Amino acid sequence: MKLNEYIKNVPNFPKDGIQFKDITPLLEDGDAFREAIDELTTWASSLGATKVVGPDARGFILGCPVAYALKTGFVPVRKPGKLPRETISQSYELEYGSNTLCMHKDALKKGDKVVIIDDLLATGGTVVAAINLCEKLGAEVMGVGVLIELSELKGREFIGNYNIKSLISY
Amino acid sequence: MKLNEYIKNVPNFPKDGIQFKDITPLLEDGDAFREAIDELTTWASSLGATKVVGPDARGFILGCPVAYALKTGFVPVRKPGKLPRETISQSYELEYGSNTLCMHKDALKKGDKVVIIDDLLATGGTVVAAINLCEKLGAEVMGVGVLIELSELKGREFIGNYNIKSLISY
Repeated sequence: MKLNEYIKNVPNFPKDGIQFKDITPLLEDGDAFREAIDELTTWASSLGATKVVGPDARGFILGCPVAYALKTGFVPVRKPGKLPRETISQSYELEYGSNTLCMHKDALKKGDKVVIIDDLLATGGTVVAAINLCEKLGAEVMGVGVLIELSELKGREFIGNYNIKSLISY
Repeated sequence: MKLNEYIKNVPNFPKDGIQFKDITPLLEDGDAFREAIDELTTWASSLGATKVVGPDARGFILGCPVAYALKTGFVPVRKPGKLPRETISQSYELEYGSNTLCMHKDALKKGDKVVIIDDLLATGGTVVAAINLCEKLGAEVMGVGVLIELSELKGREFIGNYNIKSLISY
Protein backbone atom coordinates (compact mmCIF):
# COMPACT_ATOMS: atom_id res chain seq x y z
CA MET A 1 0.00 0.00 0.00
CA LYS A 2 1.32 3.44 -0.93
CA LEU A 3 0.33 5.68 1.96
CA ASN A 4 1.11 8.83 -0.04
CA GLU A 5 -1.84 8.09 -2.33
CA TYR A 6 -4.12 8.85 0.63
CA ILE A 7 -2.76 12.37 1.21
CA LYS A 8 -4.47 15.27 -0.60
CA ASN A 9 -2.46 18.36 -1.45
CA VAL A 10 -4.54 21.51 -0.87
CA PRO A 11 -2.88 24.64 -2.32
CA ASN A 12 -3.04 27.97 -0.45
CA PHE A 13 -4.40 26.64 2.86
CA PRO A 14 -4.48 27.99 5.53
CA LYS A 15 -2.98 30.89 3.59
CA ASP A 16 -1.46 31.80 0.21
CA GLY A 17 1.67 29.91 -0.70
CA ILE A 18 1.19 27.00 1.72
CA GLN A 19 0.72 23.56 0.15
CA PHE A 20 -1.37 21.93 2.90
CA LYS A 21 -1.12 18.15 3.22
CA ASP A 22 -4.62 16.88 4.06
CA ILE A 23 -4.36 13.59 5.96
CA THR A 24 -8.11 13.03 6.35
CA PRO A 25 -8.42 10.65 3.35
CA LEU A 26 -5.82 8.42 5.00
CA LEU A 27 -7.56 8.53 8.38
CA GLU A 28 -10.91 7.72 6.79
CA ASP A 29 -9.58 4.56 5.12
CA GLY A 30 -9.43 1.77 7.70
CA ASP A 31 -6.61 -0.14 5.97
CA ALA A 32 -4.40 2.90 5.32
CA PHE A 33 -4.92 4.22 8.86
CA ARG A 34 -4.05 0.84 10.32
CA GLU A 35 -0.93 0.48 8.20
CA ALA A 36 0.33 3.91 9.24
CA ILE A 37 -0.25 3.17 12.94
CA ASP A 38 1.35 -0.28 12.67
CA GLU A 39 4.47 1.12 10.98
CA LEU A 40 4.91 3.77 13.65
CA THR A 41 4.23 1.22 16.40
CA THR A 42 6.83 -1.23 15.07
CA TRP A 43 9.39 1.57 14.99
CA ALA A 44 8.48 2.83 18.50
CA SER A 45 8.60 -0.69 19.89
CA SER A 46 12.10 -1.21 18.46
CA LEU A 47 13.23 1.82 20.47
CA GLY A 48 11.81 0.44 23.72
CA ALA A 49 9.33 3.29 24.15
CA THR A 50 7.35 3.25 27.40
CA LYS A 51 5.29 6.43 26.79
CA VAL A 52 3.88 8.17 23.73
CA VAL A 53 3.70 11.97 23.66
CA GLY A 54 1.53 13.75 21.09
CA PRO A 55 0.89 17.44 20.45
CA ASP A 56 -2.61 18.95 20.28
CA ALA A 57 -4.55 18.23 18.11
CA ARG A 58 -3.36 16.12 15.18
CA GLY A 59 -0.65 14.48 17.25
CA PHE A 60 -3.54 12.90 19.18
CA ILE A 61 -4.88 11.31 15.98
CA LEU A 62 -1.74 9.24 15.44
CA GLY A 63 -0.18 9.18 18.90
CA CYS A 64 -3.16 7.70 20.74
CA PRO A 65 -3.54 4.61 18.55
CA VAL A 66 0.24 4.09 18.66
CA ALA A 67 0.08 4.19 22.48
CA TYR A 68 -2.83 1.74 22.40
CA ALA A 69 -1.00 -0.64 20.05
CA LEU A 70 2.22 -0.38 22.12
CA LYS A 71 0.24 -0.90 25.36
CA THR A 72 1.76 2.23 26.85
CA GLY A 73 0.23 5.41 28.23
CA PHE A 74 -0.32 8.57 26.19
CA VAL A 75 0.77 12.04 27.33
CA PRO A 76 -0.98 14.98 25.64
CA VAL A 77 0.93 18.17 24.89
CA ARG A 78 -1.65 20.95 24.70
CA LYS A 79 -2.17 24.60 23.93
CA PRO A 80 -2.32 26.96 26.94
CA GLY A 81 -5.49 26.90 29.04
CA LYS A 82 -6.46 23.31 28.22
CA LEU A 83 -4.66 21.28 30.89
CA PRO A 84 -6.33 21.78 34.28
CA ARG A 85 -3.46 21.16 36.71
CA GLU A 86 0.06 22.54 37.17
CA THR A 87 1.94 22.68 33.84
CA ILE A 88 5.31 23.51 32.33
CA SER A 89 5.33 25.38 29.01
CA GLN A 90 7.49 26.05 25.96
CA SER A 91 7.01 28.64 23.20
CA TYR A 92 8.24 28.28 19.62
CA GLU A 93 7.88 29.52 16.04
CA LEU A 94 5.61 27.68 13.59
CA GLU A 95 5.79 27.42 9.80
CA TYR A 96 3.09 30.11 9.89
CA GLY A 97 2.73 32.03 13.20
CA SER A 98 3.88 31.12 16.71
CA ASN A 99 2.61 28.83 19.45
CA THR A 100 3.03 27.71 23.07
CA LEU A 101 2.75 24.12 24.24
CA CYS A 102 2.10 22.88 27.78
CA MET A 103 2.44 19.56 29.61
CA HIS A 104 1.25 18.57 33.07
CA LYS A 105 4.17 18.76 35.49
CA ASP A 106 3.52 15.18 36.69
CA ALA A 107 3.00 13.69 33.20
CA LEU A 108 6.48 12.21 32.87
CA LYS A 109 9.35 11.30 35.16
CA LYS A 110 12.95 10.09 35.07
CA GLY A 111 13.09 6.62 33.54
CA ASP A 112 10.28 7.19 31.05
CA LYS A 113 11.36 6.42 27.47
CA VAL A 114 9.32 8.63 25.18
CA VAL A 115 8.48 8.71 21.50
CA ILE A 116 6.91 11.89 20.20
CA ILE A 117 4.29 11.28 17.50
CA ASP A 118 2.82 13.96 15.24
CA ASP A 119 1.16 14.14 11.85
CA LEU A 120 3.64 16.46 10.14
CA LEU A 121 7.28 17.43 10.43
CA ALA A 122 7.69 20.87 8.86
CA THR A 123 10.27 23.26 10.36
CA GLY A 124 10.44 21.12 13.52
CA GLY A 125 9.35 23.82 15.96
CA THR A 126 6.52 21.80 17.49
CA VAL A 127 8.71 18.74 17.88
CA VAL A 128 11.61 20.61 19.49
CA ALA A 129 9.20 22.25 21.96
CA ALA A 130 7.78 18.82 22.80
CA ILE A 131 11.29 17.35 23.23
CA ASN A 132 12.18 20.20 25.60
CA LEU A 133 9.05 19.60 27.70
CA CYS A 134 9.80 15.87 28.00
CA GLU A 135 13.44 16.44 28.92
CA LYS A 136 12.57 19.14 31.48
CA LEU A 137 10.57 16.45 33.30
CA GLY A 138 13.52 14.03 33.20
CA ALA A 139 12.23 11.67 30.51
CA GLU A 140 14.46 10.29 27.76
CA VAL A 141 13.33 11.05 24.19
CA MET A 142 13.96 7.89 22.14
CA GLY A 143 12.67 9.27 18.85
CA VAL A 144 10.23 11.32 16.82
CA GLY A 145 7.71 9.62 14.52
CA VAL A 146 5.59 11.47 11.96
CA LEU A 147 3.27 10.54 9.15
CA ILE A 148 4.61 13.23 6.78
CA GLU A 149 7.95 15.00 6.51
CA LEU A 150 8.34 18.15 4.40
CA SER A 151 12.03 17.60 3.69
CA GLU A 152 12.86 20.97 2.17
CA LEU A 153 11.91 22.76 5.41
CA LYS A 154 14.85 20.95 7.07
CA GLY A 155 13.03 20.09 10.28
CA ARG A 156 15.29 17.06 10.64
CA GLU A 157 18.35 19.31 10.87
CA PHE A 158 16.64 21.62 13.37
CA ILE A 159 15.72 18.66 15.60
CA GLY A 160 19.30 17.40 15.54
CA ASN A 161 20.57 14.19 17.01
CA TYR A 162 17.37 12.17 17.58
CA ASN A 163 16.00 9.10 15.81
CA ILE A 164 13.41 10.43 13.34
CA LYS A 165 10.94 8.23 11.47
CA SER A 166 8.65 9.55 8.71
CA LEU A 167 6.30 7.38 6.67
CA ILE A 168 5.84 9.80 3.77
CA SER A 169 8.38 12.36 2.59
CA TYR A 170 7.88 15.33 0.23
CA MET B 1 -9.92 -2.23 37.20
CA LYS B 2 -11.95 0.78 38.33
CA LEU B 3 -11.51 3.36 35.58
CA ASN B 4 -12.97 6.13 37.74
CA GLU B 5 -9.92 5.91 40.01
CA TYR B 6 -7.88 7.34 37.11
CA ILE B 7 -10.00 10.49 36.73
CA LYS B 8 -8.97 13.58 38.73
CA ASN B 9 -11.61 16.10 39.73
CA VAL B 10 -10.29 19.67 39.35
CA PRO B 11 -12.59 22.25 40.97
CA ASN B 12 -13.20 25.65 39.30
CA PHE B 13 -11.62 24.84 35.92
CA PRO B 14 -11.85 26.34 33.34
CA LYS B 15 -13.95 28.72 35.44
CA ASP B 16 -15.60 29.06 38.85
CA GLY B 17 -18.22 26.47 39.64
CA ILE B 18 -17.12 23.89 37.04
CA GLN B 19 -15.88 20.56 38.40
CA PHE B 20 -13.50 19.59 35.59
CA LYS B 21 -12.90 15.87 35.04
CA ASP B 22 -9.22 15.47 34.16
CA ILE B 23 -8.76 12.32 32.08
CA THR B 24 -4.97 12.63 31.67
CA PRO B 25 -4.10 10.22 34.53
CA LEU B 26 -6.16 7.55 32.74
CA LEU B 27 -4.51 8.26 29.38
CA GLU B 28 -1.06 8.11 30.95
CA ASP B 29 -1.64 4.65 32.42
CA GLY B 30 -1.18 2.05 29.67
CA ASP B 31 -3.49 -0.53 31.28
CA ALA B 32 -6.30 1.90 32.09
CA PHE B 33 -6.13 3.50 28.64
CA ARG B 34 -6.23 0.10 26.97
CA GLU B 35 -9.18 -1.07 29.05
CA ALA B 36 -11.18 2.05 28.20
CA ILE B 37 -10.48 1.67 24.47
CA ASP B 38 -11.27 -2.05 24.53
CA GLU B 39 -14.61 -1.49 26.28
CA LEU B 40 -15.65 1.15 23.75
CA THR B 41 -14.44 -1.03 20.87
CA THR B 42 -16.41 -4.07 22.04
CA TRP B 43 -19.53 -1.92 22.28
CA ALA B 44 -18.95 -0.28 18.85
CA SER B 45 -18.28 -3.66 17.26
CA SER B 46 -21.56 -5.03 18.62
CA LEU B 47 -23.37 -2.21 16.78
CA GLY B 48 -21.68 -3.05 13.46
CA ALA B 49 -19.91 0.30 13.22
CA THR B 50 -17.98 0.90 9.97
CA LYS B 51 -16.69 4.41 10.80
CA VAL B 52 -15.68 6.24 13.96
CA VAL B 53 -16.35 9.97 14.26
CA GLY B 54 -14.62 12.05 16.94
CA PRO B 55 -14.84 15.74 17.80
CA ASP B 56 -11.74 17.96 18.06
CA ALA B 57 -9.67 17.57 20.20
CA ARG B 58 -10.33 15.10 23.00
CA GLY B 59 -12.64 13.03 20.81
CA PHE B 60 -9.48 12.23 18.84
CA ILE B 61 -7.81 10.80 21.95
CA LEU B 62 -10.39 8.04 22.35
CA GLY B 63 -11.93 7.86 18.87
CA CYS B 64 -8.70 7.18 16.97
CA PRO B 65 -7.62 4.13 18.97
CA VAL B 66 -11.19 2.79 18.82
CA ALA B 67 -11.08 3.15 15.00
CA TYR B 68 -7.70 1.40 14.96
CA ALA B 69 -8.92 -1.46 17.15
CA LEU B 70 -12.15 -1.81 15.08
CA LYS B 71 -10.12 -1.68 11.84
CA THR B 72 -12.30 1.13 10.51
CA GLY B 73 -11.53 4.65 9.33
CA PHE B 74 -11.68 7.72 11.56
CA VAL B 75 -13.53 10.91 10.61
CA PRO B 76 -12.47 14.06 12.49
CA VAL B 77 -15.04 16.70 13.41
CA ARG B 78 -13.16 19.97 13.76
CA LYS B 79 -13.46 23.59 14.76
CA PRO B 80 -13.86 26.10 11.89
CA GLY B 81 -10.76 26.85 9.81
CA LYS B 82 -9.02 23.53 10.43
CA LEU B 83 -10.32 21.32 7.62
CA PRO B 84 -8.84 22.38 4.28
CA ARG B 85 -11.51 21.29 1.80
CA GLU B 86 -15.27 21.87 1.42
CA THR B 87 -17.10 21.38 4.72
CA ILE B 88 -20.55 21.35 6.26
CA SER B 89 -20.96 22.96 9.68
CA GLN B 90 -23.21 22.95 12.74
CA SER B 91 -23.31 25.42 15.66
CA TYR B 92 -24.41 24.58 19.19
CA GLU B 93 -24.31 25.67 22.85
CA LEU B 94 -21.67 24.25 25.20
CA GLU B 95 -21.77 23.74 28.96
CA TYR B 96 -19.74 26.98 29.04
CA GLY B 97 -19.89 29.13 25.86
CA SER B 98 -20.79 28.18 22.28
CA ASN B 99 -19.06 26.39 19.43
CA THR B 100 -19.23 25.41 15.76
CA LEU B 101 -18.15 22.04 14.38
CA CYS B 102 -17.25 21.18 10.78
CA MET B 103 -16.85 17.99 8.76
CA HIS B 104 -15.51 17.50 5.25
CA LYS B 105 -18.43 17.17 2.83
CA ASP B 106 -17.00 13.91 1.43
CA ALA B 107 -16.11 12.37 4.82
CA LEU B 108 -19.17 10.12 5.06
CA LYS B 109 -21.80 8.71 2.71
CA LYS B 110 -25.05 6.74 2.71
CA GLY B 111 -24.39 3.23 4.01
CA ASP B 112 -21.75 4.29 6.54
CA LYS B 113 -22.58 3.09 10.06
CA VAL B 114 -21.08 5.55 12.49
CA VAL B 115 -20.25 5.60 16.17
CA ILE B 116 -19.42 8.99 17.67
CA ILE B 117 -16.73 8.82 20.35
CA ASP B 118 -15.89 11.62 22.78
CA ASP B 119 -14.30 11.97 26.18
CA LEU B 120 -17.20 13.56 28.02
CA LEU B 121 -20.98 13.72 27.75
CA ALA B 122 -22.15 16.88 29.52
CA THR B 123 -25.21 18.72 28.14
CA GLY B 124 -24.91 16.78 24.88
CA GLY B 125 -24.47 19.81 22.59
CA THR B 126 -21.28 18.55 20.96
CA VAL B 127 -22.71 15.10 20.37
CA VAL B 128 -25.98 16.37 18.87
CA ALA B 129 -24.02 18.65 16.51
CA ALA B 130 -21.85 15.68 15.48
CA ILE B 131 -24.95 13.49 14.95
CA ASN B 132 -26.47 16.20 12.74
CA LEU B 133 -23.30 16.44 10.63
CA CYS B 134 -23.19 12.66 10.11
CA GLU B 135 -26.87 12.45 9.20
CA LYS B 136 -26.65 15.42 6.80
CA LEU B 137 -24.11 13.36 4.85
CA GLY B 138 -26.44 10.34 4.78
CA ALA B 139 -24.64 8.16 7.34
CA GLU B 140 -26.48 6.17 9.99
CA VAL B 141 -25.53 6.95 13.60
CA MET B 142 -25.41 3.63 15.46
CA GLY B 143 -24.44 5.07 18.83
CA VAL B 144 -22.52 7.49 21.00
CA GLY B 145 -19.67 6.26 23.22
CA VAL B 146 -18.01 8.37 25.89
CA LEU B 147 -15.52 7.83 28.67
CA ILE B 148 -17.41 10.00 31.18
CA GLU B 149 -21.06 10.97 31.54
CA LEU B 150 -22.14 13.84 33.81
CA SER B 151 -25.60 12.41 34.47
CA GLU B 152 -27.15 15.40 36.16
CA LEU B 153 -26.67 17.56 33.05
CA LYS B 154 -29.14 15.23 31.28
CA GLY B 155 -27.18 15.00 28.01
CA ARG B 156 -28.71 11.57 27.47
CA GLU B 157 -32.21 13.08 27.36
CA PHE B 158 -31.07 15.87 25.01
CA ILE B 159 -29.52 13.33 22.61
CA GLY B 160 -32.73 11.30 22.58
CA ASN B 161 -33.26 7.95 20.91
CA TYR B 162 -29.68 6.75 20.26
CA ASN B 163 -27.64 3.98 21.84
CA ILE B 164 -25.40 5.71 24.41
CA LYS B 165 -22.48 4.00 26.16
CA SER B 166 -20.55 5.64 29.00
CA LEU B 167 -17.76 3.94 30.93
CA ILE B 168 -17.83 6.23 33.97
CA SER B 169 -20.87 8.08 35.28
CA TYR B 170 -21.05 10.93 37.80
